[in-house]
Amino acid sequence: MLKEAIYHRPKNNFAYAYDEQTIHIRIRAKKGDLTKVELIYGDPYVWKNGTWQRDIMTMHLAGSDGLFDYWFAEIKPPFRRLRYGFKCMSEIEETYYTERGFQEKEPSRIDSYFCFPFLNAVDVFKAPEWVKNTIWYQIFPERFENGDPQLNPLGTLPWGGKPSPQNYFGGDIQGIINRLDYLDELGINGIYLTPIFKAETNHKYDTTDYMELDPQFGDKKSFAELVEQCHKRGIRVMLDAVFNHSGASFAPFKDVIKNGERSDYKDWFHIRKFPLIEEGQLNYDTFAFAEVMPKLNTENPEVKDYLIKVAKYWVEEFGIDGWRLDVANEVDHQFWREFRQAVHSIKPDVYILGEIWHDAMPWLQGDQFDAVMNYRFTNAVLDFFAKEKTTKSEFEQEITHVLQSYPESVNEVAFNLLGSHDTERILSIAEDNKENLLHMFLFQLSFPGSPCIYYGDEIGMTGGNDPGCRKCMIWEEGRQDRGLLKNVQELIKLRKQVPLFGNDGAFQWTNLHPDIISYTKTSSDEQLLIMINRGTEPLKVTVPNDFYGQRDIWDQEQLSDHTTIEGKGFKLLYRKTKMVPVN
Amino acid sequence: MLKEAIYHRPKNNFAYAYDEQTIHIRIRAKKGDLTKVELIYGDPYVWKNGTWQRDIMTMHLAGSDGLFDYWFAEIKPPFRRLRYGFKCMSEIEETYYTERGFQEKEPSRIDSYFCFPFLNAVDVFKAPEWVKNTIWYQIFPERFENGDPQLNPLGTLPWGGKPSPQNYFGGDIQGIINRLDYLDELGINGIYLTPIFKAETNHKYDTTDYMELDPQFGDKKSFAELVEQCHKRGIRVMLDAVFNHSGASFAPFKDVIKNGERSDYKDWFHIRKFPLIEEGQLNYDTFAFAEVMPKLNTENPEVKDYLIKVAKYWVEEFGIDGWRLDVANEVDHQFWREFRQAVHSIKPDVYILGEIWHDAMPWLQGDQFDAVMNYRFTNAVLDFFAKEKTTKSEFEQEITHVLQSYPESVNEVAFNLLGSHDTERILSIAEDNKENLLHMFLFQLSFPGSPCIYYGDEIGMTGGNDPGCRKCMIWEEGRQDRGLLKNVQELIKLRKQVPLFGNDGAFQWTNLHPDIISYTKTSSDEQLLIMINRGTEPLKVTVPNDFYGQRDIWDQEQLSDHTTIEGKGFKLLYRKTKMVPVN
Repeated sequence: MLKEAIYHRPKNNFAYAYDEQTIHIRIRAKKGDLTKVELIYGDPYVWKNGTWQRDIMTMHLAGSDGLFDYWFAEIKPPFRRLRYGFKCMSEIEETYYTERGFQEKEPSRIDSYFCFPFLNAVDVFKAPEWVKNTIWYQIFPERFENGDPQLNPLGTLPWGGKPSPQNYFGGDIQGIINRLDYLDELGINGIYLTPIFKAETNHKYDTTDYMELDPQFGDKKSFAELVEQCHKRGIRVMLDAVFNHSGASFAPFKDVIKNGERSDYKDWFHIRKFPLIEEGQLNYDTFAFAEVMPKLNTENPEVKDYLIKVAKYWVEEFGIDGWRLDVANEVDHQFWREFRQAVHSIKPDVYILGEIWHDAMPWLQGDQFDAVMNYRFTNAVLDFFAKEKTTKSEFEQEITHVLQSYPESVNEVAFNLLGSHDTERILSIAEDNKENLLHMFLFQLSFPGSPCIYYGDEIGMTGGNDPGCRKCMIWEEGRQDRGLLKNVQELIKLRKQVPLFGNDGAFQWTNLHPDIISYTKTSSDEQLLIMINRGTEPLKVTVPNDFYGQRDIWDQEQLSDHTTIEGKGFKLLYRKTKMVPVN
Repeated sequence: MLKEAIYHRPKNNFAYAYDEQTIHIRIRAKKGDLTKVELIYGDPYVWKNGTWQRDIMTMHLAGSDGLFDYWFAEIKPPFRRLRYGFKCMSEIEETYYTERGFQEKEPSRIDSYFCFPFLNAVDVFKAPEWVKNTIWYQIFPERFENGDPQLNPLGTLPWGGKPSPQNYFGGDIQGIINRLDYLDELGINGIYLTPIFKAETNHKYDTTDYMELDPQFGDKKSFAELVEQCHKRGIRVMLDAVFNHSGASFAPFKDVIKNGERSDYKDWFHIRKFPLIEEGQLNYDTFAFAEVMPKLNTENPEVKDYLIKVAKYWVEEFGIDGWRLDVANEVDHQFWREFRQAVHSIKPDVYILGEIWHDAMPWLQGDQFDAVMNYRFTNAVLDFFAKEKTTKSEFEQEITHVLQSYPESVNEVAFNLLGSHDTERILSIAEDNKENLLHMFLFQLSFPGSPCIYYGDEIGMTGGNDPGCRKCMIWEEGRQDRGLLKNVQELIKLRKQVPLFGNDGAFQWTNLHPDIISYTKTSSDEQLLIMINRGTEPLKVTVPNDFYGQRDIWDQEQLSDHTTIEGKGFKLLYRKTKMVPVN
């Protein structure tokens, strides 16, 4: 047994409160090393004749990545307190693993065991319920639709021209309102708008005034109407808060530029010394090294009060449903904790989404964010389906790795995007392979989490990194890929109509064929089997017994014991079950 | 190379802000497996000709436990942002380790690397400066000294009788005041009092009134005098806050008992249903299953406000310096975050010490506690010196394991106790072996952290678990072990006079002899070498060159190249150095 590979530490993805009654326990071991793991557990204060009363539960193998197996158990401790340890068994030996390390015999002293001291409800990670059932659509407002040409900024170009980091095409709020029928037909039920507050650039990530709409997008009346119209249609609205830094035209920074040392606002930023710029060197912190994006000092109570007032204002006055937080990981944790409490004091079910590209466990403990932009998911999907540079098992392992590195409750509301305004268009990454594109949508939309579609990906828009990915939305139907659009619509419909396809089904890889991606989604009485052939050759698959005679919910085909999946094809098999799942 | 053993994850003991400029990075690997580890690091936004500008630093092997080596590096990122990865080298192979796992080639994509996004000052773990230089003395007030017999509770027994869980000997605040000269002579500079608020028991862990002193201990005037007298002598005062649960006589709980469902205070507790007790079963949460210790609902804003008012009151009115928090890990994290902010708003350098017996990383991230009762240290020391049940290498490994499981900044203020009111007396555990007892004091007092002596241990008091460990303090000199006392005094003096002996020296095991515990404490220009012979036979040790001719700061002996350490003896060698430390 490889003891060095065995890992567990409480209060993160390895031991967490799933809900107010339930604790999830995971343990990691070398892949293929353990044959069985038992969880030894109990309430620390339940003793009988001087002996701690412990129970035993067999853990199950939840998944594997490249190096490790992950074992899982779920417990509902009656008094919400838990001490626990592991009995690890391989084919030839067994050992006990507790906080004190490895022992040959079951430790008798209770203080040797791992400790989950008390399940306090307020500490439980809890995202808004609605997020699990939301399919997001990300809009870059300058480029979605020009609904009110009167608002066009000076020098606005005709719709559909070549995007540059500086140019304008006049997209606005009215444009989005005008296209709500389209979004409704697509089936999405949440829109995420990149920043709409007054700013100097076309992307608006350099805020000038957090309390005003950018005039090129409209006024507050138009925004209020957008929210109202969306809510009428059951569509949630999420805005983008750029609180890491402001723009250079933000009044407090202008005051600093003007008054230097004497400015009342000099502590609103991180200024090392004056003058602000010396021999081309910035004497203040910024986003990256962008002179026009001074980093806000979110430790300053005045700044904190101001930004929290902003965060509350748009929720309170306009009823927005979510805040996406730009460069969230460069802002202090303390600020986000106060932000969460403040926003939730106004509306308890606002979704708080941080822009973090990396492992984000420290922000997903219940006190800060509900989710992060799940680029680790994105990368796994793109590497496999779009770039075809990873193998089936590498893909499965990477997806498992991401799932296992967060609590299940976090995975259920993860913001699973394929692309954004910060990445190359997925169709371009896929080198225009529309079949691979559809596979990506299928995988994304059948995966646990809260998926997001970047505007235009559903009609096959292309483009490189910024500015290429920020082209004007194509509205002439003749230039849209209507077939793709129809397929995406169908997938969204499935996600909404077959709860199992969405978040209600527990995800599990199966391995029906070495060259076919296959996974099940399982609930208490239903199961879906999804099979995807990334290759170009037809492949024969043996259908598990339980699915004989069931229909494919995609093309309605009735399945016998064998089926052929065409090159680039896929199958979605559904069955009712009261039995044990096939895996 | 054993990849499965390699572990790193940011924002805990593996990557943390040591101070406002410095980030510490650690990586774990199989013991003896790697020969060299390089840290590849840089600012994520510093690029040149399309290439990320990274630097390389060789990590050093900071320590090992039973299974693992821990490699360490310290970085001061100029813009407080950091991306990093590891180049792991063994004798036969090398690999790159980043957030995306292991790769043969150095990853070119920056998003593969580990991320420490920004070093925000407010998130840095920061304990009060004075704690590093504090030697605590824990007092169980009922049993330290009876200074005012007029306060004696009914049935108070003569001083020095056999302690029981129920009996009283009349210890009080005046008694502590009367004995401050003794404490001063001993040399301690912090006292920690177990609870002194109004309660029903002799231990007072069942609070009746958090705003009042227990009348058996005195009144607020006497407590104010105690704090004043202590502060005059440079002694800090820490009180014990029992916020997990109250006593049954706490007015709100009495109201619940009286008014049941109709009580305004029913949400102050965790009541599952009424009546409170049915067929011997409690229908409310308690500490353990103690009927008289109802668990407080610290999620209820009223309770929170009340307890935080209490916490502020004793700091504001009496100027106390620390709060020790009873059963701290069963109270919600959210409460402790608010507690910290509230207490620090009154006095920013109050020490916040949680009672947690287990791994406590989740509470030691800067937002909650400064330290926990470091029983993991206690156990390691007792197992080796008192019980003699672990070997030298097991001891060293366990101590290293504890050190490596927390940030260095946490270790510097860890509350390192040998015993408390909750454990058997250390001399009894040591089966009355006074030499082993002295070794324990030596080790504790020369170790990083904030050591605490349990009243009476310094004069060789004995006793089993509660109530045995809560005997009356022995004041007749003839019954005190004056020799031991003198030695403890000397050790305390060393800790205060030789900063290296205390927290200023970096701790490092050496291995000069297979049967001798030896370690160095090293600063920029001094070094101490401490050698302890746990055995009963004299042992010859080769003294490292650098210590030839130096004196032993314990017995002033001048050392040559060899020295003999008597059975149960020890040596404390000191040298000035501007050179590289011996290890």
